[in-house]
Amino acid sequence: MKKAAGTEQVSPLFRQVYEFVLNRMERGEWKAHDKLPSIRLLAEELKVHRLTVFKAYRELSDHGKVYVKDKSGYYVSAGSRPAAAVEAGAEVPSYSLTNPLSDIQRTPVKYQFSQALIDPNLLPNLFLSDYVKKVFDLYPKVMGTYSSVQGDEELRETLSRHFHEQHRLQLSPQELIITSGAQQAINLIAGIMLGPMDYVLVERPTYSVAMDIFRRAGARLVSVEITPDGYDLTEVEELMRKFKPRMFYMNPTHHNPTGYTVPVRQRKLLVELAERYRCLLVEDDPFRDMYFGEKPPPPFFAYDTEGWVIYISSFSKYVAPGLRICAVACRYPFMERLITAKSLSDNGTPLLNQKIFLHYYTSPRLQQHIGKLRIALQVHKEIAEEELAAAGWEWTAPQGGLNLWVKLPESIAVAELFARCMAESISFVPGEICDPLGEMTNRLRLSYSFASEEKLREGLRRLTAIAGELARG
Amino acid sequence: MKKAAGTEQVSPLFRQVYEFVLNRMERGEWKAHDKLPSIRLLAEELKVHRLTVFKAYRELSDHGKVYVKDKSGYYVSAGSRPAAAVEAGAEVPSYSLTNPLSDIQRTPVKYQFSQALIDPNLLPNLFLSDYVKKVFDLYPKVMGTYSSVQGDEELRETLSRHFHEQHRLQLSPQELIITSGAQQAINLIAGIMLGPMDYVLVERPTYSVAMDIFRRAGARLVSVEITPDGYDLTEVEELMRKFKPRMFYMNPTHHNPTGYTVPVRQRKLLVELAERYRCLLVEDDPFRDMYFGEKPPPPFFAYDTEGWVIYISSFSKYVAPGLRICAVACRYPFMERLITAKSLSDNGTPLLNQKIFLHYYTSPRLQQHIGKLRIALQVHKEIAEEELAAAGWEWTAPQGGLNLWVKLPESIAVAELFARCMAESISFVPGEICDPLGEMTNRLRLSYSFASEEKLREGLRRLTAIAGELARG
Repeated sequence: MKKAAGTEQVSPLFRQVYEFVLNRMERGEWKAHDKLPSIRLLAEELKVHRLTVFKAYRELSDHGKVYVKDKSGYYVSAGSRPAAAVEAGAEVPSYSLTNPLSDIQRTPVKYQFSQALIDPNLLPNLFLSDYVKKVFDLYPKVMGTYSSVQGDEELRETLSRHFHEQHRLQLSPQELIITSGAQQAINLIAGIMLGPMDYVLVERPTYSVAMDIFRRAGARLVSVEITPDGYDLTEVEELMRKFKPRMFYMNPTHHNPTGYTVPVRQRKLLVELAERYRCLLVEDDPFRDMYFGEKPPPPFFAYDTEGWVIYISSFSKYVAPGLRICAVACRYPFMERLITAKSLSDNGTPLLNQKIFLHYYTSPRLQQHIGKLRIALQVHKEIAEEELAAAGWEWTAPQGGLNLWVKLPESIAVAELFARCMAESISFVPGEICDPLGEMTNRLRLSYSFASEEKLREGLRRLTAIAGELARG
Repeated sequence: MKKAAGTEQVSPLFRQVYEFVLNRMERGEWKAHDKLPSIRLLAEELKVHRLTVFKAYRELSDHGKVYVKDKSGYYVSAGSRPAAAVEAGAEVPSYSLTNPLSDIQRTPVKYQFSQALIDPNLLPNLFLSDYVKKVFDLYPKVMGTYSSVQGDEELRETLSRHFHEQHRLQLSPQELIITSGAQQAINLIAGIMLGPMDYVLVERPTYSVAMDIFRRAGARLVSVEITPDGYDLTEVEELMRKFKPRMFYMNPTHHNPTGYTVPVRQRKLLVELAERYRCLLVEDDPFRDMYFGEKPPPPFFAYDTEGWVIYISSFSKYVAPGLRICAVACRYPFMERLITAKSLSDNGTPLLNQKIFLHYYTSPRLQQHIGKLRIALQVHKEIAEEELAAAGWEWTAPQGGLNLWVKLPESIAVAELFARCMAESISFVPGEICDPLGEMTNRLRLSYSFASEEKLREGLRRLTAIAGELARG
């Protein structure tokens, strides 16, 4: 039985740390070119997490209040007090939202291992660009025309045939809605399903941004452990009985971050549990076609007959990620609510993007591209595994997806490693960000898909070397 | 002193009506090919608004439960009871959201006067299509690359120069964020500013979807009358003092739906009030360049020095609306919160759309196009005004924008006119949808920009003829 993670209030801690530091500078306690306390020290003094201090320091640096000297720390800038506009603005109350993953990803680094995205060089860019120019001839008014809120009908028809061919899903175009990426889909579903005090089941670990979205809605998270064998269904049933969660957000195929895949038998049983306890299964499935051995089992949605699964299929991620096209399969009555949520959110995904995606999707080149991409990703994965093995580290060996879930040697704290790596232009995702309980402090998520082979090898050598220094020191 | 509209709970009324009718059909009280009660009758029986019944009937019709015979009403289909999946699904609790404007717009009609959009035939489609093909050569990896969350830097730089040239705004690229249309901007701002019990000022009448967004956030609406002279600032100050609203959502230039423009003097004074009462002004400005006489005064944002105005500039509406590109100008610290909200919402607007917009925006053709469009819209407006004048109706004569705000003769109820018009494939926006107090029952919003000149004239003749029948009968 796992404990509920509870509704930790979205905290203004980072802002407090920011203002704490600024205040000392303004009062003249910390003067120009003084060295700020180390992240570790200030975190201990203020009883906050090191990541919080890191974020405050980075923000101070972005606003020119402090500057960084390579590898030695943060220093007070020679600048003046903040401008009046900043001061007045800073007093405005507003709801603070958090997205630590996005904060990390927004910092430009040389060795980018925090983004589960595909290296643009692995995509057939030239072919794609030439090919899609035809879209403008096929749909001459595409730049001036809005899509329907639910999404272009031609695209939804094509996709409903695709889902039928791939998974024998009986799915009408009316049961599909097009969103701008999986992220928007999760956000819209949270909008119709979650309010203050509602419970939501999430895997432990899970995709951190989904948790940020659910917390912003005021929901309380209850975690379900995911292992190489999937879930403990007895436990899941107990949680459903006890908490009556409105939904279970899951990523059961090449799971992010662990790479685990929930076995077929559990898929059928869990759909039955969902029906019995009226708990909607929200199946996020972005990595399905990125398998290295066997094809993964069919989605949960394939076993659902009663409308208790919403299926988020963001396969544009490895087709043309820049388009931000995601298809969501969903039955009545949820669909009509999703359409209203979409209408409030952005009134429909741009038609141009949908038509381009449709056009490329139906090209003979697509399957060929996906096959090649699989091989390229496997090469990336093997490079990463070689480097980790050389350092004597452990990780889960995924059958697909874009990430390794790495276990650090006991002697190394991931927060410290993270701060050191960011200072040396290497990013990854600290494990605790992915943990609804915030306890996984010796894990990290390494995405091997975005950096080039060369950068991947080089960056991981540096990363493990830094970790070695920390372990010794 | 206006009363607060209050947080009317988002009502499940339409669902209740839907199920009331379905229930009678299932129990066999209303049998196949029976005529349903008229919208007026059922509305009276259930003590709900006619629009609610209209919506329930339309939904029943969409699901094949009833069918429509032209001009004579709704009839029970020969179909069976709903499928098990539908029944099970229908019991799921979920938060209901409303967007009556989108519901109206989603119904395909021959005479489309409910959409404040521009007729795609008035856009330079062929030029645009040819021109933007170059974007793929300029940015060969554009299909495979994500935008930064805040928006493409090249675009933000260009736009910051644009705002400087147009309005002498001192605005750095860091003070701009790109969103997918103004709708998303409003939604993101609501996300950071509004929670349960917060007050928000809105104009009366106003853009209905903004109210739907604020209500979904749990906020309470307080209305500020807008007149040809702008606002009553004494009243606005009193409302700010009394309710301490977190923000004032406004559309002060060619206001939707009235067409009014708030004078310069009030702009300066209101920015001072906003500073004094710490009430953020959210300035929605989609129609600025669509003026027929004088250029409108500068935006509120131009008078703001303390960061109390967020400026939503969705000028892509008349450039290339299909791209869904909107620029939001906003100072620190709101900007960083908006970026986080955007990261949770969709992680960034597609890069392709931003690059295409940028490319066309800098083309010499643009200003020429906008000039032509202004003339075309004025012709549309004059046609609409001729037809209304012929029927002896009153309306506000706008100096710009895409709408007429029409006053119906006392003898005609707009809800009845609306139901009759929709049955004859003519759509418009009933005034009460635009009214935070829901009382403007003899007003309607007519958008003259979307239908062709011919359809506009023809449709308005039919509309006024139907109204004439209602007045007599």
